[in-house]
Formats: sequence, structure tokens, C-alpha cells
Amino acid sequence: MTQLELAKLNKISPEMRCVSKQEHCSLQVLRDRIKEGRIVIIKNLKRKIAPCAVGEGLRTKVNANLGTSEDKAHIATEIKKLRSAIRYGADTVMDLSTGGDTRKILKDILKNSKVPVGTVPIYQAAIKARKEKKSISRMERKDIMEAFEEQASYGVDFFTVHCGVTQDTLTRLKRKKRLMSIVSRGGAFLAEWMLVNKRENPLYEYFDDILKIAKKYDITLSLGDGMRPGSLIDATDRPQIQELIVLGELAERARKENVQTIIEGPGHIPIDQIESNVLIQKKLCGNAPFYVLGPLVTDVAPGYDHIVGAIGGAMAAFYGADFLCYVTPSEHLRIPDESDVKNGVMASRIAAHAADVAKRVPGALDWDRDMSRSRAARNWKHQISKSMDPAKAASYRKASVPRAKGVCTMCSNYCSLKTVERYF
Amino acid sequence: MTQLELAKLNKISPEMRCVSKQEHCSLQVLRDRIKEGRIVIIKNLKRKIAPCAVGEGLRTKVNANLGTSEDKAHIATEIKKLRSAIRYGADTVMDLSTGGDTRKILKDILKNSKVPVGTVPIYQAAIKARKEKKSISRMERKDIMEAFEEQASYGVDFFTVHCGVTQDTLTRLKRKKRLMSIVSRGGAFLAEWMLVNKRENPLYEYFDDILKIAKKYDITLSLGDGMRPGSLIDATDRPQIQELIVLGELAERARKENVQTIIEGPGHIPIDQIESNVLIQKKLCGNAPFYVLGPLVTDVAPGYDHIVGAIGGAMAAFYGADFLCYVTPSEHLRIPDESDVKNGVMASRIAAHAADVAKRVPGALDWDRDMSRSRAARNWKHQISKSMDPAKAASYRKASVPRAKGVCTMCSNYCSLKTVERYF
Repeated sequence: MTQLELAKLNKISPEMRCVSKQEHCSLQVLRDRIKEGRIVIIKNLKRKIAPCAVGEGLRTKVNANLGTSEDKAHIATEIKKLRSAIRYGADTVMDLSTGGDTRKILKDILKNSKVPVGTVPIYQAAIKARKEKKSISRMERKDIMEAFEEQASYGVDFFTVHCGVTQDTLTRLKRKKRLMSIVSRGGAFLAEWMLVNKRENPLYEYFDDILKIAKKYDITLSLGDGMRPGSLIDATDRPQIQELIVLGELAERARKENVQTIIEGPGHIPIDQIESNVLIQKKLCGNAPFYVLGPLVTDVAPGYDHIVGAIGGAMAAFYGADFLCYVTPSEHLRIPDESDVKNGVMASRIAAHAADVAKRVPGALDWDRDMSRSRAARNWKHQISKSMDPAKAASYRKASVPRAKGVCTMCSNYCSLKTVERYF
Repeated sequence: MTQLELAKLNKISPEMRCVSKQEHCSLQVLRDRIKEGRIVIIKNLKRKIAPCAVGEGLRTKVNANLGTSEDKAHIATEIKKLRSAIRYGADTVMDLSTGGDTRKILKDILKNSKVPVGTVPIYQAAIKARKEKKSISRMERKDIMEAFEEQASYGVDFFTVHCGVTQDTLTRLKRKKRLMSIVSRGGAFLAEWMLVNKRENPLYEYFDDILKIAKKYDITLSLGDGMRPGSLIDATDRPQIQELIVLGELAERARKENVQTIIEGPGHIPIDQIESNVLIQKKLCGNAPFYVLGPLVTDVAPGYDHIVGAIGGAMAAFYGADFLCYVTPSEHLRIPDESDVKNGVMASRIAAHAADVAKRVPGALDWDRDMSRSRAARNWKHQISKSMDPAKAASYRKASVPRAKGVCTMCSNYCSLKTVERYF
């Protein structure tokens, strides 16, 4: 049985018990929110990992995208990136490989990951079609469903399915004349297939079959956003919202079949549109957890998109997004390396934690209080050990050691805390 | 005459003309807002630099703090930091030196800076008192006023004056039992002086004399926040707001004397309190421009405080803050080096620009549109040249060159834009 099915039967699973403890959330609230689809527990039935819960009232989670491309396809590199993602605190990873031996890479990532692993199964069918038949438009139903079956059996914990890229959505996209038509890879593969074959999105057509597989393994479906805007100019437009309406309907269908579902969103969204984007997702999708890329609040800072995404991510999570997909400094420029993964994870974790403090996630502020106490005591050893990245904090301090004790080289003996501590 | 005096007489200065062009703001709107104290033009009458305007409806400005400490006091390093700040787009800099030959450093920074330079004159008096009389509490009126006179004559464009740290404010601070009492250096110097001497804040007492000097050179007064919270726990508390009330009254007095004024604020503030902080500053201070440090939206990420500050800065600027003081990755750990200055300026510029797009500053979105067009055309050369930091973007791309043209190594030939461009 899936977690959703158990919750509907008012049963408490070991996974729920584990999450309840981790998240300081009562078992009853947790179970009720799972029942209503407001919280999902991401874990393939077959996998032996700790469950990761995403949704209302819980700590905001962070996902790190991994994976090869045709230009860079080294398994060892991907495993290093995976380790870096986990070390710096990613709650989940996705394997988005499109180069090299993608089956082996996925299996190795699953073997080496203690956190849930997500994939986009349509990639496997698209790669096969392009390799064997020279065109993505020649993907076949058999290959698509095989990809889902196969990856489910490997133990993948969540699947991105771009089912909302329907013919109706594409018509609205054509009418709108976007600046950047489709920037989602899965969305683009499906659009090409649909436009060449003049048929409905196969993932939409075969949605019941996908639900069956998801149910069998309790795989969480992440309803993908093929219409994710790739420019501030295209944000919150009709194609994007049209797709979201379809995703809301599909989330409802999934819940009826006891399949857990989250909704993917944003991309490039200006600051003033973030709150509305979260609100409309929650309304249209029956409060399903919201999984957002970025959002990126400006288009002009390649090389710094982890910072751009941290701004948008913190705001989105504060307004109610539940799950942040990281953006690395390499976004728009190259495939990320190990250091990009680290920087992307750190920026997203900062955003997630800052939002958790502000939306009063139980326990979040305790960390800040603890750090501030060490600061007030001018105890740098404690400050460093409590830092989100102790090694980086330590290296900064080590590179510039003050002559006096209990200060730093910014103010030396003119330290404000030292100056007034005897009076307060 | 000061810019404020000219505006009150309905006169248009060359500086106003220059700002009007730079900012796509009509001369009449600009003059009216200067008259009302909603906009200031920062420039000492003696300095031969382009004016920098800060306030309502204008592009959000970024300040970079420079300056030595007793542990690091190399003039050459400070000049390098200054050049880095200007190269990466700081609109103003502050010299906060407390180590070495502070007079020479300030003169050198003024000589080498084409952007306005700010200082905290009380530092000079405090350093003198500690050196000569072994205690900051022995600062004398003569030395304080001399610091103002001297630095004004050098050409300093704006002065931070912590006049709001009154005895009343300190009483409220004692009652409140903050986690981190005072984290503002100027605030701490004055508090020590006031508590030892049991007298009112000299900057508050001599405010009329300070106004005279400011008026003579048209120096903008930046009313400092000695009660800036240094922990999320202390944010938006009674001492902070008490000080803001005093600053609002002083801003009104300054305007009557034709002295331009801005208000300093934030520090460590959780996301959910940023909007209120901006609103209350605008209300209490008659819509004076708001100059905020950070805000830092969590305490736990030393080594990444430029990102923490970018989140808070973007939100504050979106809600109406006008001027962001950068935070560097070295905050809480050490005095910044040249690379920290660069990273701090870049993070703040991203925050400022993202806010400007969202609050519809004229022209802001054009940059993003332009970048997106280059992206849609898969033209990396143009994308790089239009980047906020072209050198960094170029180095990322150069480190990972795709085999195919017109793609990047993230998706190689599975590039979404390439896949669908023939259809849209």
C-alpha cells in the first residue's frame, strides 16, 4: 500500500513515525495532511533509505540535479557530485543524465544515494528514439512505458512527468508568442513529438498506466512544468497557467488512485509575481506540495544564478512552496561540476532555512538563536562549528587571524560587542 | 546652496539634470521629490564626481564598505578593494578605517574614487581618545567636531551619524535584554561614552552644529542605526524602533535646515519582518530614503552572508528600500579582501536589479529582455557580453566547451531551445 492509501485508512506507517519525529509534527496532523495530499513521503517501496517528507508545515526541502550530457559523461564525476550534494545537505537528488551509459549511471546513483532519487523517464525513451530512429518524434509507447517500468524497478523514488504539455497548452503557447518558447528539456521532447505526430501528449494519454506503476512502488509523481518560463518576460503567462490547470486535474486523479503527487513550477519569475505563483498553484492543485526551480528573479547574472535562485527560492518557500530545486552558478553556461553542486546546494539551503524561520517551521529559529549566543559570547570556535558550512567558515577565519583574542580582523579591538559587553 | 535648498526654491541644478537623464526621471518629479526629502543627491560641493541620487522611483543603489582595522592596515590593499568595488558596480563606498594612518587612507580613497565616499566621523574621535587617553569614553566635543570639520573639508560626500542612540534608547535597550546588545561600532562607541559619562549622546546634543557643517558642503547625513539587530531574535524590537522614532524627528530637523538626509536600517531581520521594517521607516521618517545593511535573513551561514544579504536586500528594495549596503562572504569572520568585496558587490547588485525589475524602475526590465533575446537565439557570445559579470560568465563557458555549436554542455544536442525552435 502507498503512504496515501495508508493515511486514507487512518493507518500510521513506520515512515510516518520517522517523519513525525524528524519534523516535530504530530502523527495525526501528518497523517491528515498526507490523506489530503498536502504532504507526500518520497520513497520507493523497494528502497532502504530514510523517508523524506515534503509539504505543508514541514521543513523546506532542497533537491540537487545531477546527471551527464553528451559532452560530459563520466560516472565517477557524477558520483562525486552526488556525494557533494549529500554532504552539503541536499534532501533529494535527481539524475537527469542524457549522455553515456545512462542505465549504469542511474543504478550507481541509486546505490550510492541515501536520499531519494528522482528521474525524468521520458529522457530514456527520447535518447533511444534519437539514437535508433534519428528523431525524438519517433518515440514509441512501448519505449516510454518501458522506461517507467524499468526505472521504477530500479528503485527510483520520484518521477517527473510532463503531462501538462497538452495540445491545448501548445496552442496557447503558439498564440502567446513567447520570447523563449520551451526551456524544459522534457517539455521540449514531448512538444516535438506532439507537433510532428499531431497527437496528444503520450504521458497525458497513458496517465492511468503511469499511475499504476507509481502505485505499485509508491513512487511520488512530480507533475512537470514543460511551460516553465525561461525569461522574466514570459513569467506567469497563459501557457504556464494553462498547464498548471491541467496539472491540478491530474493531481486530483492521482490522489484518487492513491498515488502521491507534487507539482513543479517556476523558473524565471520576477519578485513581484512569486507570491501569486505560489497561491495559484495551491488553489489550482488542491494544496499539493509545490516544487519550484529557483525561481530566478533576474535573467542577467549568469555565473551567479545560485544567488539569483536563492532570492526567489527564499521568497517562494516563505509564501508556501515546499521543495526547492537548486540552481548552480553554472546555469545557462555549462553542466555543473562538483564545486557548482556545492554552491547550488548551499544557496538553496540558505533560502530554505531563511524561509523556514519566517514561516515558523518548528525548531527552525533554534539554530539561529544558538548561533547568536555564540556570537554574543565572541566564541568563534562555537560559531564555526554551528555554521551551515563549518569548513568554509573555518577557512575564512584561518586566513585572517586577529592579534587579540575574542575578536575578528574586521574591528580588532574596536569590536562593538567587546566595547559594550560590560554594560549590558 | 544645497540641492535641497535649490529644490525648495524650485530651481534646477546641473546635478539634477544629470540625475534626471541617468534615471529616466522627469526633472519636475525629481525636484519635487528632493524638495520633500524623498530623494537625495549625494555629493560634497567640493567634489568633482558625477552625482549619485538615492530615493523613491530611482534605481536601487549599492554601497561597499572599505577600510582598515588594527589587524590589517595596508593602504594599497584598500585602494585595490576600492577599485574592485567600483569595477563591479558599487554606486558609493564607505571608508570605515580604524587602523593605520586613517587620514591618509581617507584622502587616498577620495582621490581614487569616482563614486561618492562616506565615513563615520565619530571613529576618528574614538580612535584619538583611545590612543591618547586610553578610553573611548574620554572623547571630547572638540575632537568630535574637528573630525566632522576635517573630513567635510576633504570632500567626504556622506556622513553616518548615530544620533539616535539617546539615553532614552539605551534605557529601552537595557529593559529589553537583547541577545546581542549593540553590533554597530559607532553605536557601541557612543553607548560607552554615554554610560560612563552619564550624559546625552554628543551627536544628538551637537546636532545643530553637525547640520551647519553638512549644509556648508551639502553633505548628506546618513542617520545611523546604533540599535541595528545583530540576531534574528533581536529584530524589530523596542530599542530598534525607539531609535527610528528619534531618527525620524532628526530627519525633519535636518530638512528644515536644508540638509539632505537618509536613514540607516536593518541588519539581521527574518523574511517575514522585512516589509514592515520598510513601511515603518517610511512612515516614521517622512519618506526619507532608506539605506539598509543586508538585511540578513538568517544567522547561521557565515561564509555565505553575501547570499543571505542578497535575499534580504532584494526583498527590502522591492518593498521600498532605496540603498543597499553590501554584505560580503567574510562578514562575522574577518575583514574583507578584494575578492570578498567583489562577491559582496555582485550579490547586492543582483538583489538591487531584481528589485528594480519588480518595482518597475524605468528601464530595468530592458536588460533582462535583451539577455533573454540572446538566449532564445542561442548566442552565447552576446549572452556573455550582456552579463552582469562578463568575465565570470566567459570563464564558466570556456571551462566546458560543447562539441556542437549553439548549445552548452548541460544539454548538448538535447538542448530544449534547439529541439523546438523550428516549431515556434
